[in-house]
Amino acid sequence: MKTLLLTGFEPFLQLTVNPTMKIVEELNGLEINGHRIVGKILPVDFRASGKELLQLLEAEKPDVHISLGLAAGRYKITPERVAINVQDGDVDNKGNRPVDEVIQANGEPGYFSTLPIRKMVEKLIQNGFPAEVSNTAGTYLCNNVMYEALHYAQKSNNKLISGFIHIPASHELAIAHGKIPSWSHEDLKNSIITCIGALEHHDN
Amino acid sequence: MKTLLLTGFEPFLQLTVNPTMKIVEELNGLEINGHRIVGKILPVDFRASGKELLQLLEAEKPDVHISLGLAAGRYKITPERVAINVQDGDVDNKGNRPVDEVIQANGEPGYFSTLPIRKMVEKLIQNGFPAEVSNTAGTYLCNNVMYEALHYAQKSNNKLISGFIHIPASHELAIAHGKIPSWSHEDLKNSIITCIGALEHHDN
Amino acid sequence: MKTLLLTGFEPFLQLTVNPTMKIVEELNGLEINGHRIVGKILPVDFRASGKELLQLLEAEKPDVHISLGLAAGRYKITPERVAINVQDGDVDNKGNRPVDEVIQANGEPGYFSTLPIRKMVEKLIQNGFPAEVSNTAGTYLCNNVMYEALHYAQKSNNKLISGFIHIPASHELAIAHGKIPSWSHEDLKNSIITCIGALEHHDN
Amino acid sequence: MKTLLLTGFEPFLQLTVNPTMKIVEELNGLEINGHRIVGKILPVDFRASGKELLQLLEAEKPDVHISLGLAAGRYKITPERVAINVQDGDVDNKGNRPVDEVIQANGEPGYFSTLPIRKMVEKLIQNGFPAEVSNTAGTYLCNNVMYEALHYAQKSNNKLISGFIHIPASHELAIAHGKIPSWSHEDLKNSIITCIGALEHHDN
Repeated sequence: MKTLLLTGFEPFLQLTVNPTMKIVEELNGLEINGHRIVGKILPVDFRASGKELLQLLEAEKPDVHISLGLAAGRYKITPERVAINVQDGDVDNKGNRPVDEVIQANGEPGYFSTLPIRKMVEKLIQNGFPAEVSNTAGTYLCNNVMYEALHYAQKSNNKLISGFIHIPASHELAIAHGKIPSWSHEDLKNSIITCIGALEHHDN
Repeated sequence: MKTLLLTGFEPFLQLTVNPTMKIVEELNGLEINGHRIVGKILPVDFRASGKELLQLLEAEKPDVHISLGLAAGRYKITPERVAINVQDGDVDNKGNRPVDEVIQANGEPGYFSTLPIRKMVEKLIQNGFPAEVSNTAGTYLCNNVMYEALHYAQKSNNKLISGFIHIPASHELAIAHGKIPSWSHEDLKNSIITCIGALEHHDN
Repeated sequence: MKTLLLTGFEPFLQLTVNPTMKIVEELNGLEINGHRIVGKILPVDFRASGKELLQLLEAEKPDVHISLGLAAGRYKITPERVAINVQDGDVDNKGNRPVDEVIQANGEPGYFSTLPIRKMVEKLIQNGFPAEVSNTAGTYLCNNVMYEALHYAQKSNNKLISGFIHIPASHELAIAHGKIPSWSHEDLKNSIITCIGALEHHDN
Repeated sequence: MKTLLLTGFEPFLQLTVNPTMKIVEELNGLEINGHRIVGKILPVDFRASGKELLQLLEAEKPDVHISLGLAAGRYKITPERVAINVQDGDVDNKGNRPVDEVIQANGEPGYFSTLPIRKMVEKLIQNGFPAEVSNTAGTYLCNNVMYEALHYAQKSNNKLISGFIHIPASHELAIAHGKIPSWSHEDLKNSIITCIGALEHHDN
């Protein structure tokens, strides 16, 4: 049995719901494809989210790490290809608003996901879920935690498999906040289960 | 028990799938909210679709008529408010391509749906499906059959309740044809069941 | 010489700019294609805008009437085909927020524009401006003033040629308010001059 | 006087026009903000475009290099922040269709643009052109040539300032190919002149 650290975010800014939070809470503790899921919720805070994720990686010592984020406006499941060494964007829940800052002064410009993103996309499509590889995780919190985890994996030279998956809004979020494409919570959750099913299987 | 004529379309132009066809085939023969569903598929043909629908209205004498159409690009269930006396648009499956033509030379400029469209939208949202009233059914086949049925209802002065509902693409269609928002088939079908549930209930 | 009443709107809701206002102010008093332009600005007020427009039609007795409106999100010049007898939508500048109300209790369901909308679209494209006929002016103020003018023209049985043209946001508006397509003010103004050039020419 | 190598692309795939080609041809030979413009057109060919660009960098020895690309669907001028070591995407004009390939086996995962992209965005907005920094140049030819030039600059340890700017479709392209936002050619060309005006000025 492998350990998979799966994270979601608390609601962003003025939104009242974050579909990633609900998925993570429901999958927490389950065993899927030979992986025991440890589900955790990260804060929407440039100063804290990366730090909390690194503490979780140290504490849980997972074999695999997947962070989930909401991409309002997207209408496919999009495993991210790359994280870049930039933080920039809208204000977070604590009032931080970085402009063109580096995340890690000694980090590489970018790190590629070590998840099997192409296999995830193929498996999602086979299971009836529109999906494609995304080439940008943005420069907001999502890129930030993806970058921190991959930087940690590379610098600690460990075996951690790590990456990020963006998901569409849920119907619930679209009803509450307006003109954005959305999927049902069931579709979103089953998509993530499908992604976990694309990881290498381990029997013991 | 009331009779509800529910129509879908065969696939449009180069598309290989039409989600409305599958919904209609699956609901055909069911009894929902005191309505027996008679499901029929219309051709994508400006010269034939309206005529076939009128023949069905004459033959089945339904209490309620709902036609379903695909609105590729939309991501909500959108009951249509109005049909207009215009046919115009892309070529149909038979090669017709009308420009700014009237549908009925002696028809009104427009007819309003007589379905409970506001109640449908409210009930959809209560059931977790993003929905809104749409103010245009376009000028292609969808508007055409909606207009023909409402013109028939008005001219024959009968009690027919009639209208049109546009639905998003299905995941299956999005996977086959690309960059459009989509819902699962289950969500689409359950949304239409919800709309039927918004009709006035009749016990016998 | 013919008289053309050209109207724009004051800024909507929280927006600080309305590109139609600037166009109307700049074209006011000019003679274009045998038409003397009388430019006027309408308030964003469901209770007042239609009434003010009807007073202008009575006072100016124009041969042609064109109202302009902003369609945030569109990226083509879109002469409107039809106005419908509905007012519904977001709150206006005075706090009115009608739901599914009729505009005129004894009005037709819809009236078609009497402007040469197909010729306008062709001429716009010939002049290098993307354009298409739109089949919905919505149910907000834009549809409201279009409907009121066409209802007036039909009921007074007069010769008034009347209609509505929606335009994209200006670059200025997009810079101030965000994620919407936009054109330069020069392109927007020249497009409207092109539309006026599609009217029947009268030498004297 | 500095030398600026400015490149555009020939038309992509089924498109008949490429707005970047026209801009480059018109600016070729001009002196703008102390920079002599050397304009060149690159082929849409994964195997040739990077190679040709490197030959131009060797031959012209420019102080600054800017490649332009069309981003169909975008409606702002978007200087790119980063190029990534991936080629993947639709077939090119020669039939190549790479999947998840690296561009340079010994290259970094990503390279940041060395153009003053933040200053370019600010100056564009001051001049009335909507603009924002983009975080992805995709994985098609645009990213390819951006990556090749930045890899060359870094490996040759030279002083070359280099980067990529994506522009919206032109009105001409939108008229020919459909449902995409567009700007006038004049706006597009003046935007690029504005970007060149954001480079450090050199009097001699």
